Amino acid sequence: MDATALAPHPPPSSHTRPSQAPSSQDPPRSGPRLGLGRFETLKRRAAGTPGLVSFAGGLPAPGEFPRTKLAASFVRALQTPSCPALQYGWPEGDEDLRSWIAGQLRRRGASVAADDVIVTSGAQQAVSLAAQMLRGPGARIGVDPESYPGALELFQALGATVVDDGRHVDAHYLMPAVSNPRGRRMSPRERAKVLSTLRPIIEDDAYADLCFDGPAPRPLLAEAPDRVFHVGTFSKTLCPGLRVGWLVPPRALRSDVLKLKQAADLQAASLPQAILEDYLRNEDFDQRLVRLREFYARRAARMEQALRRYLPGWRLEPPAGGFAIWVEPDAEPNEAFFLAAAIEHGVAFDPGSLFRANGAVTPFALRLCFSSVERDEDLDEGIRRLARCWAEVA
Amino acid sequence: MDATALAPHPPPSSHTRPSQAPSSQDPPRSGPRLGLGRFETLKRRAAGTPGLVSFAGGLPAPGEFPRTKLAASFVRALQTPSCPALQYGWPEGDEDLRSWIAGQLRRRGASVAADDVIVTSGAQQAVSLAAQMLRGPGARIGVDPESYPGALELFQALGATVVDDGRHVDAHYLMPAVSNPRGRRMSPRERAKVLSTLRPIIEDDAYADLCFDGPAPRPLLAEAPDRVFHVGTFSKTLCPGLRVGWLVPPRALRSDVLKLKQAADLQAASLPQAILEDYLRNEDFDQRLVRLREFYARRAARMEQALRRYLPGWRLEPPAGGFAIWVEPDAEPNEAFFLAAAIEHGVAFDPGSLFRANGAVTPFALRLCFSSVERDEDLDEGIRRLARCWAEVA
Repeated sequence: MDATALAPHPPPSSHTRPSQAPSSQDPPRSGPRLGLGRFETLKRRAAGTPGLVSFAGGLPAPGEFPRTKLAASFVRALQTPSCPALQYGWPEGDEDLRSWIAGQLRRRGASVAADDVIVTSGAQQAVSLAAQMLRGPGARIGVDPESYPGALELFQALGATVVDDGRHVDAHYLMPAVSNPRGRRMSPRERAKVLSTLRPIIEDDAYADLCFDGPAPRPLLAEAPDRVFHVGTFSKTLCPGLRVGWLVPPRALRSDVLKLKQAADLQAASLPQAILEDYLRNEDFDQRLVRLREFYARRAARMEQALRRYLPGWRLEPPAGGFAIWVEPDAEPNEAFFLAAAIEHGVAFDPGSLFRANGAVTPFALRLCFSSVERDEDLDEGIRRLARCWAEVA
Repeated sequence: MDATALAPHPPPSSHTRPSQAPSSQDPPRSGPRLGLGRFETLKRRAAGTPGLVSFAGGLPAPGEFPRTKLAASFVRALQTPSCPALQYGWPEGDEDLRSWIAGQLRRRGASVAADDVIVTSGAQQAVSLAAQMLRGPGARIGVDPESYPGALELFQALGATVVDDGRHVDAHYLMPAVSNPRGRRMSPRERAKVLSTLRPIIEDDAYADLCFDGPAPRPLLAEAPDRVFHVGTFSKTLCPGLRVGWLVPPRALRSDVLKLKQAADLQAASLPQAILEDYLRNEDFDQRLVRLREFYARRAARMEQALRRYLPGWRLEPPAGGFAIWVEPDAEPNEAFFLAAAIEHGVAFDPGSLFRANGAVTPFALRLCFSSVERDEDLDEGIRRLARCWAEVA
């Protein structure tokens, strides 16, 4: 195995929490917590470690980036006479791109027009705009016990209270199609329950197109368009480097959201939008999604197999889609120590505490991303390294 | 004159205010105010009017976009094995790009290292991050009587009080090298005065590289790095479609700013950063700046000449740099009515009230951008149309 093949991918900025202030009043449930400053250090050390197998970061597979086609789209986009690709654009984003996004959502059962869509600087900004529209600081936002760190961090930064234990909330943040980090699909009963509360919902659909069993399911947006903020992105299905996502806010709030968006950064970058618009017009995106679903499903199965073989005591639930497997080992070592030891063994992961609003290290858990290793074989090798490390530490 | 040559450029999202809530308690100083909803309508109508000469929007000249070179940079950036151009990156931005930015600032006398620089989603986000670091809602931010609408709108959205009359403030927002909309350079005395207040300063240097008399001057950052938030961008000197700017915050606040940045949108888009980094490594940017300064200075002079010829009663101060001339006509018609009439005559501009914190329409003023018309001759034609309209209306 050569070092280049295993060279770490670029830094995991997607699904890792940059800071650490626990939101809820409760202290971490038990055990010493991995400080995020410390995690940041480890993360950067991992990125600089040659030969490392990284299961961290929630990054898509770089081998699946359609480089040549994007380059062709770029060249075509530059040929338009007034060159809108390089100029300022409208704050709501490119019209053709918004039409395409609306069309995708209509196919899934939601009643969405191009004018309902706001193109954002990635899904993170879409979640940020939605959260800012919820009732001011002090709003109580309900999340799963494990949730997307970027959202947790954001809600806390906005002064909201993150509630992960089912107590009363003012709004929900959910990933109904494929959750992060657990890769779960919400059951019909759970959907019905959350809809019955009549509260605003931020529906983060980042991984919805990567359900292993087929096309993205009907979004919550279709059931309650007047109180669902629907969030999507091209970062998982095409590439994160374009930094293009979208928000479909309730219609009554659209103009307020647009003002917030404009104050934040005027508009999403024109160039990536122009590339995307051209790419989507010329390529069969459905076909791409079919291939990606097969690709990631195969990787998930292989990682699961390796885990069952080398770490048979670890609990896991096979994911319904997405990039990762959430595992709960059979012992409770110090999280920071175990991550540092794993990096020494040449493998990295995202520690479970990152995904918890209060940073709890218990129950001890890891998110293992199968998405971005260079080759399928790296999945086996990475899990073997993890198992060797576990045998020494736990 | 063919219609295509004069076809309106893409929409002016750069320097126009999306909403209207006046910030200070005072009502508009006099006269009926151009509602921003109304302005939005007119702006979009203008964008759809064939043959229009647009002096609105603060857009750079599309003819000066280095299309071929950017395409070459894109293709090169895609050839890197792990393709960081299309992947997630670090929240602070590309290291080589930050080094380049720091180098530029050092040449201007500021002591800046690559690690001091945070790459942002345009200058607007840099101003937004800086403003969020100022003492909470209710902070009083001092601005010029006419200032950048995107900043005014933002400060108001954040709950700050915008102060434009020299009363006590908690912080300053300034464009010392070239102001927008007036195109003024701060005098040494003004610099000394604002520095002597010892208050935080947001230094928006968007146009600093486009001073007609030579390289960008020494920034305020060089004098007070511990309380200046320095803001820059490639939107005016290269192209806005990349949406890449930067913020140099005081060192003590860097990690807090970075957390805010990450919560807002994780990171600036990787692709535009990779293109830029390659472009700057391979091109002589100083040479480009010399040419751009000559280009815009020539346009400024030509517009000034046309104004003095066709509208000799209008007051103007020749700009020291940038994209626009601020004019104060010799009568006070209804602003909204005059803009609508001008569009009927085939010419558009940014109404003066947009640049005032309280939306005052008096003294009646216009910002006329000479930057983005297709050909130099369009400057004469646009001013002739404006003069014809003025003769009918005023």
